[in-house]
Amino acid sequence: MAGKKTLIEDLIDALTCLPGVGKKTAQRMTYHLLQRARDDALNLSDVLKQVVKNITNCKLCRNLSQEEICDLCSDDSRSKDMLCIVESPADVFNIENSTNYNGIYFVLLGKLSPLDGIGPKEIGLDELESKINSGGIKELILAVNYTVESDVTAHVISELALKNSVKVTRLAQGVPVGGELEYLDQYTLSKAFDKRTIY
Amino acid sequence: MAGKKTLIEDLIDALTCLPGVGKKTAQRMTYHLLQRARDDALNLSDVLKQVVKNITNCKLCRNLSQEEICDLCSDDSRSKDMLCIVESPADVFNIENSTNYNGIYFVLLGKLSPLDGIGPKEIGLDELESKINSGGIKELILAVNYTVESDVTAHVISELALKNSVKVTRLAQGVPVGGELEYLDQYTLSKAFDKRTIY
Repeated sequence: MAGKKTLIEDLIDALTCLPGVGKKTAQRMTYHLLQRARDDALNLSDVLKQVVKNITNCKLCRNLSQEEICDLCSDDSRSKDMLCIVESPADVFNIENSTNYNGIYFVLLGKLSPLDGIGPKEIGLDELESKINSGGIKELILAVNYTVESDVTAHVISELALKNSVKVTRLAQGVPVGGELEYLDQYTLSKAFDKRTIY
Repeated sequence: MAGKKTLIEDLIDALTCLPGVGKKTAQRMTYHLLQRARDDALNLSDVLKQVVKNITNCKLCRNLSQEEICDLCSDDSRSKDMLCIVESPADVFNIENSTNYNGIYFVLLGKLSPLDGIGPKEIGLDELESKINSGGIKELILAVNYTVESDVTAHVISELALKNSVKVTRLAQGVPVGGELEYLDQYTLSKAFDKRTIY
């Protein structure tokens, strides 16, 4: 365990590239894989390589995809006049699993954050603008997060759309399902109160 | 996202082979790797394959090793008359990092657990017995866990050693460093009280 780095230590280090995995967890994973799951480890190795090699971003919506044009964009049954703007591929996955939305998406792959060097180009605003300019979009749904940075991004995109007279909507704010008013932060409660709906 | 399984879903599934990683975490890891850490993912893939291919168990102590005989067993500066019994390679790693023990190890790779089909053969008791029979061992240190199953394992091994008049020791039990008596379970407190030492 002394001297130069061993292969086992290499694997411990490599596993820490996973989000939420520190040294201690990586160590536990390494020993688990080597003692009880060598086949799984080989499979994981293969799948990782294949995924990195074959998954790129869809030319139309920037979502992760195995093809040049992703399954969602090439699906003729989906209406092309609804465009849902999300920050990450995980959001597309969640919306597909939770709603019956049947339009198309545009994935920003981030949000405007000048301090981190993420400007309009990085989040594909040029592509988005030409998509909007080309017409045919009736409603643009802003399904971005409700944080300060995302609010700015949402504002910039809404201006692009409004310039082209496209209707812009944003996800409703309010009390989450299962939420108790007692524990709700004041901003959410205030929003939910203002936007109360007919019962 | 419908129909046959995509490569991305394959990766999500493959990642759940890691201990403590469920579907949701695997999904987060997958998107992280694809969006921000493709090089890390390729590196992880390579290291996984290499480790599974090259790491076996040491012929002498059954610890994980890159060579037929591990670094610890082939280190002439370590005294061969102290034998420390541990359950897993992770324990060797921990003892090497925490103590100045300078003897050799024997890794059980488990503990006796008849219900799970783990008997004396699976934890290498034959090899251990012939190691003890061949003489030269002055002290056998039982560094196994303090659980009911491990207690049985410890007892069986101690009998092997005592038959050969080898001194057997087991790790001390007591209050852990930083422990507060108020929160200590009654068994530990009772042990610590019984085994109190001269201050």
